[in-house]
Amino acid sequence: MTPSPRIALLGEADSYSGPALARTLAARGHHLVLGDATADLVAELKAGGTSVVNVTGLDHLREAPASQRLVDAALSEFGRIDAATTFSGIIVTGRFLDSSFEDYQRAVKSCLEIPYHFLRAIVPVMAEQGYGQVLLQTSATGGRATPGAPLYSMARAGANHLVRNVAAEVAGGGVQVNAVGTNFMDFPGFLAANGVTSPEARSKVESRVPMRRLGDLDEFAAFCAAFLDGSSTFVTGQFVSYSGGWG
Amino acid sequence: MTPSPRIALLGEADSYSGPALARTLAARGHHLVLGDATADLVAELKAGGTSVVNVTGLDHLREAPASQRLVDAALSEFGRIDAATTFSGIIVTGRFLDSSFEDYQRAVKSCLEIPYHFLRAIVPVMAEQGYGQVLLQTSATGGRATPGAPLYSMARAGANHLVRNVAAEVAGGGVQVNAVGTNFMDFPGFLAANGVTSPEARSKVESRVPMRRLGDLDEFAAFCAAFLDGSSTFVTGQFVSYSGGWG
Repeated sequence: MTPSPRIALLGEADSYSGPALARTLAARGHHLVLGDATADLVAELKAGGTSVVNVTGLDHLREAPASQRLVDAALSEFGRIDAATTFSGIIVTGRFLDSSFEDYQRAVKSCLEIPYHFLRAIVPVMAEQGYGQVLLQTSATGGRATPGAPLYSMARAGANHLVRNVAAEVAGGGVQVNAVGTNFMDFPGFLAANGVTSPEARSKVESRVPMRRLGDLDEFAAFCAAFLDGSSTFVTGQFVSYSGGWG
Repeated sequence: MTPSPRIALLGEADSYSGPALARTLAARGHHLVLGDATADLVAELKAGGTSVVNVTGLDHLREAPASQRLVDAALSEFGRIDAATTFSGIIVTGRFLDSSFEDYQRAVKSCLEIPYHFLRAIVPVMAEQGYGQVLLQTSATGGRATPGAPLYSMARAGANHLVRNVAAEVAGGGVQVNAVGTNFMDFPGFLAANGVTSPEARSKVESRVPMRRLGDLDEFAAFCAAFLDGSSTFVTGQFVSYSGGWG
């Protein structure tokens, strides 16, 4: 369906799922366009035979030109984009009744506006190609009400529904757009945000997960690959909660 | 997490996604317990080095003992079940206002009762093991209202929600339960049910799919494998519509 090797674009390749996804997609035969990857990751991937373009200074894709720079780099180096994914967003906590408009703005800016810019830059290229797979990494909080993070949950739900709407708009053109949202992943940022500094604190967090443990980022990358590696081209407009049964 | 090779159980291995899933899971290192597989499929899998137990005379898993026979065969031959999946159900069409109670009973019997028996037989074994992955293949009609098949859609939605409930009940025990629902797959049964006997008739059906084509069963099997092959153990209680953007 697409030429081989395939070309995958990963925003925010420096953190969270980025490195695991880069390794997984490289192992499945993709060349990569990465956003702000570490020099070590780039060297590791290149040593394995993967062609890598690393675009730096993207500031977490906060402004529209950052996503556009990734797209431009992909087209300049490889001439196409077969798959694209990114994580985005910062956690905004606190009760709704205690919230400020600044809280609202931070949630919408990071969790909704960044996905907008990312999709707005990439999807037209794929529509022009007549194929392509986008997987937006959002949050499981977008799939259910989330006490303690209502504005974050709201913005994530908006991003998930943006995915559904964009998918509907471009389905006829052969482009797939899906979302997967995590929670309770075993990741330094999550552990720090939940005050996990001891085994006891970790157990307390795990007790909130139906599966009674945290998720693994390498496994998450393997799951995401089913939406990105070209093996399955008939699934679109979906949201999957990857959260140990929480969402 | 589980011993290798893994053991996968496939009900209804004689039709629809069954053969593609058997081949896919065999290629990913599983030994197989199959329901009513053809002799040709069994011979092909065995020739490839896969251990296969074929259980026959199951009558589409209509009654509870059929699923239990699959479970008994798996435990007797291999001592465990790492993954299990089945398709089930027959399409019941017609307007609600024209429907009979017999229509209702056919839909519930095939689309809700069979999944109940399947889960009821398999999930306790996995709960006892402390691990296991079940993927129920339902229908995309369970995710949205479906003019022309309201009772079928109803029963499918019930099965999808049964999956969510069972997943919640056993998540703490390390068992994953998910559902994926198809529509518009390129499959003789679907084509026949939609009167596709000419290229023109096929185009007409395809025009109802947002992606403007039909889905491929080998690709569907690859997608299902992400929920079954042990690569990703933190996703549970989910329903994914695999329908070219229709659901």
